Amino acid sequence: MGKGAKKRSTTTKAEVEGAALDGKAAKKARKKREAAAEARADDAVEVRSWSQVLRPGPGFSLAELDPRSTPGFDGAKKDGEKVMAELQQRLSDLQERLYAESRGGGTRSVLLVIQGMDTSGKGGIMRHVVGAVDPQGVRITAFKAPSAEERRHPFLWRIRRALPGPGMIGVFDRSHYEDVLVVRVHDLVPPATWSRRYAQINRFEQGVVDDGTTIVKVMLHLSPEEQKSRLAERLSRGDKYWKYNPADLDERGRWADYMEAYRVALEKCSTDAAPWHVVPADRKWYARLAVTNLLLEALEGMDPQWPAADFDVEAERQRLELSP
Amino acid sequence: MGKGAKKRSTTTKAEVEGAALDGKAAKKARKKREAAAEARADDAVEVRSWSQVLRPGPGFSLAELDPRSTPGFDGAKKDGEKVMAELQQRLSDLQERLYAESRGGGTRSVLLVIQGMDTSGKGGIMRHVVGAVDPQGVRITAFKAPSAEERRHPFLWRIRRALPGPGMIGVFDRSHYEDVLVVRVHDLVPPATWSRRYAQINRFEQGVVDDGTTIVKVMLHLSPEEQKSRLAERLSRGDKYWKYNPADLDERGRWADYMEAYRVALEKCSTDAAPWHVVPADRKWYARLAVTNLLLEALEGMDPQWPAADFDVEAERQRLELSP
Repeated sequence: MGKGAKKRSTTTKAEVEGAALDGKAAKKARKKREAAAEARADDAVEVRSWSQVLRPGPGFSLAELDPRSTPGFDGAKKDGEKVMAELQQRLSDLQERLYAESRGGGTRSVLLVIQGMDTSGKGGIMRHVVGAVDPQGVRITAFKAPSAEERRHPFLWRIRRALPGPGMIGVFDRSHYEDVLVVRVHDLVPPATWSRRYAQINRFEQGVVDDGTTIVKVMLHLSPEEQKSRLAERLSRGDKYWKYNPADLDERGRWADYMEAYRVALEKCSTDAAPWHVVPADRKWYARLAVTNLLLEALEGMDPQWPAADFDVEAERQRLELSP
Repeated sequence: MGKGAKKRSTTTKAEVEGAALDGKAAKKARKKREAAAEARADDAVEVRSWSQVLRPGPGFSLAELDPRSTPGFDGAKKDGEKVMAELQQRLSDLQERLYAESRGGGTRSVLLVIQGMDTSGKGGIMRHVVGAVDPQGVRITAFKAPSAEERRHPFLWRIRRALPGPGMIGVFDRSHYEDVLVVRVHDLVPPATWSRRYAQINRFEQGVVDDGTTIVKVMLHLSPEEQKSRLAERLSRGDKYWKYNPADLDERGRWADYMEAYRVALEKCSTDAAPWHVVPADRKWYARLAVTNLLLEALEGMDPQWPAADFDVEAERQRLELSP
């Protein structure tokens, strides 16, 4: 997908003409032409990265984005699952490089922010996307309703304490955005307070980026119909009851208010420093594929490097050789 | 492996005699007898759990345990790798149950303590064993040389702060045992101080177990020859330099002192509440298989249960049905 497609070679006119000297060569030339045409068609379709495809642009409307759609990927579930293993391997390799870089003094890190309504698949992203990389390089923080101590501090206090250290991939399962989502929907603070937070969040995120953290923000975009079906499943299986909370249904009753709060957060806080991505989430396999690709693109963009040895390699080899 | 083998069915004498009425049945009966004999032989070999096999008993000698051996498993590398996927799936399922149990009010947890010399494969255990379970249910703590603040506190202070919460699998990459290993080898505190620590550790671990945590302690037992070869590999590849530290070679020079310190720790701190396990670690695939099985046995012993619904399931189903 994406950028890689640009690099495909095309066939020159001279090559084609030169090859048309005999039947075999003509056949070969035709095949080359076909391949080149296909590559150009791919280019036209695939030139945009996942990040570009999923970023809400001007005129974006959450209501008009189909939660069952699969933007950026025209395969079916089995195709998506087939490419996952390779993507996970690449993700895992890049994560190790990022971690290694920090051991050599690097200070860069990644922060993946996952937001979404109940049952939108946040847990599945943790398990299947984040779970694909070395757990030593990952720190997941699940933000619940703030504790008494947390409430005594400004809303970003507990967020700052959970930021990833050098070389780490930090993951927020819910985040500071709850302070302009659930807080706004339920009027937990006065409107004057939550309305100031969008600008505070933008300044905060700019600072985090300035400190060397690449932020990947994802909203899992679920339909109310799919949520109903997922909640029904939780109520139909003894091994799923623990995931169900009667309060979830109350929140479901405020669906339109939540969508409005998301719309505003996406609009006000999708900055160049830390853009939002809206991932259709009715198909779990697609949402996992999309988030894996977003994370992968972020790491590829960072291009972390193995640190050089900070010791004399040859001297150490000799010392080791002499060691009993 | 292990306990499961006990449950295999055997063939009764009556069955065998009854079946011996015609040639085909006789052949079948012979096969059955052979299978039964094989099952009995397996029983004899496999009746002990991994935990029993790997626990240092009376007269245990670290020096006499071959680091290339594969106790409890008589297959080759490819056999070990073949069973891993299924073991990991079982581990992952049990971990989810333990986590779910805690959501229903359960307070139990698991603590996996991994100790071993440099290059013994601690990182590989984190990546390939711990990495197989949902990262949301795991908390890894790597204990490095204590910080200035940590040094101002008793040695167990930072350990207590890293204990797993309800439903979690806590993992220590090095641990409080460093306070009777590196600290003892280098005389970082007076002998009177470190020699008191064995009893302190036993009391501490007993308390942790009393609080509902199952402790699984593993020493990865590496040979100095294998360490030399692993260090040489780190010095031969640009993508491995970051894992090498010249100080590792200095530590290697104290091998015998470390083995003596390990011997004493294994002897004094392998209690019934929290026994040690010594896992031969020259073969990475075996060490990973063994630790996976130790963790699996611990979780199977706990037998975590899906919590019952703390709400009226039928009433919630109706509420959901009526929801728009």
